[in-house]
Amino acid sequence: MTEPLPRNDYEAFIPGLLHWVSYCNNGAEAAKEVLPLTVAGATVGYVRPEFAKRHLQQFPDVFQASSSGSIQVHPQLATQQARTAAIAAVLEQLREEGVIDGWRNELYPAVQSFHDEPAFLLERAAAPHFGIKAYAGVHINGYVRLPDGGLELWVARRSRTKPTWPGKLDHIAAGGQPHGLSCQENVVKECQEEASIPPELAAKAIATGAVSYTSLQAAGLKRDVLFCYDLELPLDFVPHPQDGEVEEFMRLPIHRVAELITTTDEFKENCTLVICTFLIRHGFLTPDMPGYLHLLRRLTSGDCS
Amino acid sequence: MTEPLPRNDYEAFIPGLLHWVSYCNNGAEAAKEVLPLTVAGATVGYVRPEFAKRHLQQFPDVFQASSSGSIQVHPQLATQQARTAAIAAVLEQLREEGVIDGWRNELYPAVQSFHDEPAFLLERAAAPHFGIKAYAGVHINGYVRLPDGGLELWVARRSRTKPTWPGKLDHIAAGGQPHGLSCQENVVKECQEEASIPPELAAKAIATGAVSYTSLQAAGLKRDVLFCYDLELPLDFVPHPQDGEVEEFMRLPIHRVAELITTTDEFKENCTLVICTFLIRHGFLTPDMPGYLHLLRRLTSGDCS
Repeated sequence: MTEPLPRNDYEAFIPGLLHWVSYCNNGAEAAKEVLPLTVAGATVGYVRPEFAKRHLQQFPDVFQASSSGSIQVHPQLATQQARTAAIAAVLEQLREEGVIDGWRNELYPAVQSFHDEPAFLLERAAAPHFGIKAYAGVHINGYVRLPDGGLELWVARRSRTKPTWPGKLDHIAAGGQPHGLSCQENVVKECQEEASIPPELAAKAIATGAVSYTSLQAAGLKRDVLFCYDLELPLDFVPHPQDGEVEEFMRLPIHRVAELITTTDEFKENCTLVICTFLIRHGFLTPDMPGYLHLLRRLTSGDCS
Repeated sequence: MTEPLPRNDYEAFIPGLLHWVSYCNNGAEAAKEVLPLTVAGATVGYVRPEFAKRHLQQFPDVFQASSSGSIQVHPQLATQQARTAAIAAVLEQLREEGVIDGWRNELYPAVQSFHDEPAFLLERAAAPHFGIKAYAGVHINGYVRLPDGGLELWVARRSRTKPTWPGKLDHIAAGGQPHGLSCQENVVKECQEEASIPPELAAKAIATGAVSYTSLQAAGLKRDVLFCYDLELPLDFVPHPQDGEVEEFMRLPIHRVAELITTTDEFKENCTLVICTFLIRHGFLTPDMPGYLHLLRRLTSGDCS
């Protein structure tokens, strides 16, 4: 077994960690170039001008260009239900036209802040096209505390047949936050489905904060908020894949995880941000290390609301 | 002994916690009305226009008004040493004139970011007058884990004879970050001086993040960054006052601490922010509670760099 690093030596990882934070925040500048998507005056998303022109303009009963340059959902669609239904019909047509694909059959709420009443709900696959803030779920750091006080993290390798990030390293469990489920319920559900963690054990996961970022993608602006959880697992617990999304689980010393993050691209990118918060909260990174406050602040660079 | 609250019931504390965050951030708007204080083009502080006019203008060899409206340290003072000495002489005169008082005999660095080479050092008492970012130290949440898994926090009552916040509730230990000491060394020093915590125990304190805020005071703009630490203490450990700054120590259930913060003004204000991070990191507050992300984001409202 590898000797654990003295905690002071984690300083060397900070530039590599900052790399991934910047990687996930490549859309901060681009945010100026997209058009706000509004409902009754409130901005709930952003669309690329060319997407608005080529694809939304053909639905004038649903989307209108306003004089201020924003795109507004037609005011005649006065309720959440009406907007959700009208937009679903638009998305169905855009799907048939091949403009949007990768349907997840999961509804995301369009909101300014997490606990707002949604202006409308829309298929998850369309969230980036409309720059909807995605509460892209609960991310669980599953770890064990060794008898000597050291920590090890359970890491999953995603199935190589998954359409998204095949073969990448990931958390022991994580999943998008569907409308209508509490975060706590979602933690228990994902732990069960992805790693066969019994509900009574998963229920011990502790909410520890959130990270956010803004990423420019081909489709549009990905504005994600991730909720971070820690789950201390018994030393003898071994997770098992259940739903076919995971190929294998590995338990790695923290410094090995930090090395993999900072010297390879093995990890799914946004997981690196959640692991950063773990390194910060558990004192592997400290204010005595240059770049500490910068990293801390950048972890909520997105619209963390 | 009081029955601990179910964790879900902490939701009710969020508005009261947000109150203190806003209280400590009453200077965000005022930041627009103060003049930047620059050294070689870099902004390292802010001064009230009237302070500049009435008090700094009499030292044209040290402070100059620039055409852009900022106050710059005279470019002829080309080194940290030269600036520190010239500003110390200014402060000595302002002290004699009764403009600045409460000398702490502790030097704060004037920097843009924590690990920068300081543009100059100045007496801590003058930091708000010059809007210097104050790394107002290490704040240690000293807690115990009960056999049933519940947490209790050690809280200090400040001496009633202390010039600042007499009689208020405070952390088990905390202290400003003097130039030349590492945060980790400062933790050990403050734990020893304020609570008689042996160095080998204090060394187990874990860095967990930071909070920042901008507060408008009579003197000027207080721009503070606080480094947060957790120190898990043995169940049978009892802290003792050593340097006369603390009147007594109490061990309180977390929900009692949250109640005191949200229903009284017993706590020194900025301590409430550090305890907020404790409530967030240990899962007493969760994303299922309205206001969670708002609180999380607002805890680094100041210039957290």
